[in-house]
Amino acid sequence: MRFVLASQSSARLNVLRAAGVDPVVRVSGVDEDALAASLTDPTPEELVTALAIAKAEAIAKAEDEDAVIVGCDSMLLTADGEVHGKPGTVEVARERWKKMAGTTGTLLTGHAVLRMRGGQVVDRAVGHEATLVRFGRPTDDELDAYLATGEPLHVAGAFTLDGLGGWFVDGIDGDPSSVIGISLPLTRKLLRQVDVAVSDIW
Amino acid sequence: MRFVLASQSSARLNVLRAAGVDPVVRVSGVDEDALAASLTDPTPEELVTALAIAKAEAIAKAEDEDAVIVGCDSMLLTADGEVHGKPGTVEVARERWKKMAGTTGTLLTGHAVLRMRGGQVVDRAVGHEATLVRFGRPTDDELDAYLATGEPLHVAGAFTLDGLGGWFVDGIDGDPSSVIGISLPLTRKLLRQVDVAVSDIW
Repeated sequence: MRFVLASQSSARLNVLRAAGVDPVVRVSGVDEDALAASLTDPTPEELVTALAIAKAEAIAKAEDEDAVIVGCDSMLLTADGEVHGKPGTVEVARERWKKMAGTTGTLLTGHAVLRMRGGQVVDRAVGHEATLVRFGRPTDDELDAYLATGEPLHVAGAFTLDGLGGWFVDGIDGDPSSVIGISLPLTRKLLRQVDVAVSDIW
Repeated sequence: MRFVLASQSSARLNVLRAAGVDPVVRVSGVDEDALAASLTDPTPEELVTALAIAKAEAIAKAEDEDAVIVGCDSMLLTADGEVHGKPGTVEVARERWKKMAGTTGTLLTGHAVLRMRGGQVVDRAVGHEATLVRFGRPTDDELDAYLATGEPLHVAGAFTLDGLGGWFVDGIDGDPSSVIGISLPLTRKLLRQVDVAVSDIW
């Protein structure tokens, strides 16, 4: 049985590898903006779930073996009620950190698990997680140094938990793997719903 | 300035490397049982702090350069009030998991930071963190498979957050790096107390 990760995120891949699973990586190419625009007033939870399903389903079309496909999507809800993706530039990342420092945000993660047999989806399970993130207060010098590394520019919410950003996250309430991008306990629960034990994929 | 980790834990080393720091590793050889026995009715917080200080001081004796030394110690307090180290055998690890599954524990971590100049300790900072860990409920088959990997036998509390054990931790309340063994936000705070910025050691 192939275990397929429908994501190009190296952070998700690293979480799975550290947890004993070496997945096949497939990138879905889903047009996330178009999908989001097609939904009528989705809640953030509905949005991450719909995107996770769309990514897994896009990969399923090309899969002709027995497989489990996991699709994932993540976004950060900040204290001011905004939803944030990747900042892209130093200026945007600095502005976000000036607002986020010392506050809390909610990292939302949606997962979709598809069980494939002979190229057909025979079972599926979908869920989402919300994890509270307590941001620290980098000094101006620390923030300049962090921005200069480029790391926060290319990640949702302008921070990582598993990289340099870990110095500036005081704590979380929830599942840390969910914050990195793929929740191990949620994935385990969804796998069980399609009759797969995590130890089957180690 | 050398950054010295007074610990042989590969988990701590991996946390630091992922966070941009490649420390010199030195193993203290402190007799932890003898030190614990020398303290009068220590609280668990006093114990992890005293062990962290002892490990850092043991390494400081052999250090003749400008350096920052970080000593660490961790233990798990389970819901029944017991303090747990490494289980050592499959039988003990199974028994612990039978009791821990579905409960919460508290992971205590103590850190000591010594600032050295010319072989002398010129400044120091000490602190500890407590993080709540919510254990999941592995099935009997999953627990058998987990024990068979050997991973839980050699780690404090019979679980990891950053390995296979991550499947069986539903969540935490606190700092995930602290659960793995070295708290990045606490280390950052202690480094600042001895006038070192984390960006100085990236």
